[in-house]
Amino acid sequence: MAAIKVHGVPFSTATMRVLAVLHEKDLEFELVPVNMAAGEHKKEPFLSLNPFGQVPAFEDDDVKMFESRAITQYLVHTYKDQGTELLFAERKKMAEMSVWQEVEAQKFDPVASKLCFQLFFKRTLGMGEPDEAAVAELQESLGKVLDVYEARLTGSKYMSGDQFGIADLHHQPVVHYLVGTPAKAVFESRPNVSRWVADILARPAWAKVLAMQNSS
Amino acid sequence: MAAIKVHGVPFSTATMRVLAVLHEKDLEFELVPVNMAAGEHKKEPFLSLNPFGQVPAFEDDDVKMFESRAITQYLVHTYKDQGTELLFAERKKMAEMSVWQEVEAQKFDPVASKLCFQLFFKRTLGMGEPDEAAVAELQESLGKVLDVYEARLTGSKYMSGDQFGIADLHHQPVVHYLVGTPAKAVFESRPNVSRWVADILARPAWAKVLAMQNSS
Repeated sequence: MAAIKVHGVPFSTATMRVLAVLHEKDLEFELVPVNMAAGEHKKEPFLSLNPFGQVPAFEDDDVKMFESRAITQYLVHTYKDQGTELLFAERKKMAEMSVWQEVEAQKFDPVASKLCFQLFFKRTLGMGEPDEAAVAELQESLGKVLDVYEARLTGSKYMSGDQFGIADLHHQPVVHYLVGTPAKAVFESRPNVSRWVADILARPAWAKVLAMQNSS
Repeated sequence: MAAIKVHGVPFSTATMRVLAVLHEKDLEFELVPVNMAAGEHKKEPFLSLNPFGQVPAFEDDDVKMFESRAITQYLVHTYKDQGTELLFAERKKMAEMSVWQEVEAQKFDPVASKLCFQLFFKRTLGMGEPDEAAVAELQESLGKVLDVYEARLTGSKYMSGDQFGIADLHHQPVVHYLVGTPAKAVFESRPNVSRWVADILARPAWAKVLAMQNSS
């Protein structure tokens, strides 16, 4: 029995963020499925794992956590010497990575996740068609964020710096869904962003995350 | 000349978050005022410090950063042995603190900052009266977040665990403003939240942050 358990679903972007780190780190774990259609995440025993009733929840022996970015933070610190080095201890590299980690959480995700809901999850979950006005507004906002990314990625191979890091990884799930929708154009019209997207989605660990969707 | 420079304004919640860490850590620094009324944060040279055009920006010799929570993360790591210990290295404590740090950023702040804008900044900045419908909705959402906080703080002295930590500190600026508005009732109706608010706002380092508002 694996000591690490992820309670979640392999199509949830927050769950995928945690799975991506686990695969980069080559850690053994068990994905415990949560029946979201039956509302299991809004009931006990799940609420004892996450009082906000959202996937994923996480266990590593006696450590119990929720919030995907807290879990990835825990994993990169606790298992820093295993698998891909996703954490940079050197002062300047660490500072740089922290900045772009926060940019993902505070600037990219609030816009990109809403766009992902409109263009991907609404249809997939049978919740109707995208709201075209909302999509147009979100695409414009995303474009402004990606203008900053384009400048960053002109001088740097990755958002995290010269090495793939946690700031890049946190983008994988939402970027993966969006490039499968018409929002792909917002990424493709920016050459360095486009190069970066191709790079981060080509990682073997990411392929393993997607394989879990097919086998679930 | 101080090596650490904070480019910002002492009434901005994001700037205050960084100032609070600097005072807890007893670090010398210079606050470089940004004339936001004149739009200095949307022009060069500020945009070279933060391409998103928001305060604060930060310099520590050759390290240049933006995003308040990235800056606090850098400070608590780089100056971990100085002043108040705001970072816990032990695996379980670190995991716990990471969770509540993310809860502040992902659950508390998106609601509380909007409420703060409606109830405090709108009038202060001469932008009109609060939108009462928005306030009612935000107060209800904040109440739901604070229900989870009340449960957490029933079993724990601080959000961070048994010691004041960065997860608590990140709440100080927005909580400070909100308890000076009618939203105070949302905090006061929850006894453990109320005790925690009194505790975190009574810290000497926090008094130093507020003193900077009066002298600016």
